[in-house]
Amino acid sequence: MTDTLKMDGYEFRSGCSITRSMELWGDKWTLLITRDLMWHGKHTFKSLQESDENIPTNILSDRLQRLMHWGLLRRDPYQERPVRYTYELTDAGRTLEPVLLEIMKWGHRHLGGGSYDPKTGVSLEASYE
Amino acid sequence: MTDTLKMDGYEFRSGCSITRSMELWGDKWTLLITRDLMWHGKHTFKSLQESDENIPTNILSDRLQRLMHWGLLRRDPYQERPVRYTYELTDAGRTLEPVLLEIMKWGHRHLGGGSYDPKTGVSLEASYE
Repeated sequence: MTDTLKMDGYEFRSGCSITRSMELWGDKWTLLITRDLMWHGKHTFKSLQESDENIPTNILSDRLQRLMHWGLLRRDPYQERPVRYTYELTDAGRTLEPVLLEIMKWGHRHLGGGSYDPKTGVSLEASYE
Repeated sequence: MTDTLKMDGYEFRSGCSITRSMELWGDKWTLLITRDLMWHGKHTFKSLQESDENIPTNILSDRLQRLMHWGLLRRDPYQERPVRYTYELTDAGRTLEPVLLEIMKWGHRHLGGGSYDPKTGVSLEASYE
């Protein structure tokens, strides 16, 4: 699905795959937005704003732009005046699922965080606050 | 190996395992430092400074402190006047390997970044600059 990624002319800081990945999507907010788009049926700006983490509006807006810029996300208008969009991960964006799962597994095992099984839709709450 | 993680009293932003993980080690520099400690035999401040990504000294210093604070990293003095340390991931820190591997795999497949096989020690260069 690499064909939809838009990397033309971008210069990475190094040849390392981890560096390159982190430059595209490696910050907490981007991954949390990707989580909500991937698993939690959130596809509007408003619903994405309503996560437990209270993402600031300007950061949400910036990260959505970035994800679209790289071809990981697309949007389509569903209303005019004022225009409103629905957001969907592209096929390229959906390839991030194994990364999200691996990070989730670590946080579940080592930090008592909740877990979610995308195959069954079963969620487990965090084991401590 | 959770026993060496030091989370006493820390309040996470949410119960989500991804949020929790990202709060501990989810930024580009922390993961690059972890990569160098895990796979590239870099165990002194000086050698960690010499990565291709040119990590700024103050950021390196801050991220080492953070990793030690959480129990993911330890240091031992190997010289006095001036005191110098060697840095080693703890057992808890080494549990991050599958996460690093998954991120690397994504960057290798989708962004042409290099790859490294910790089992064989074989490195592949990035396929484009």
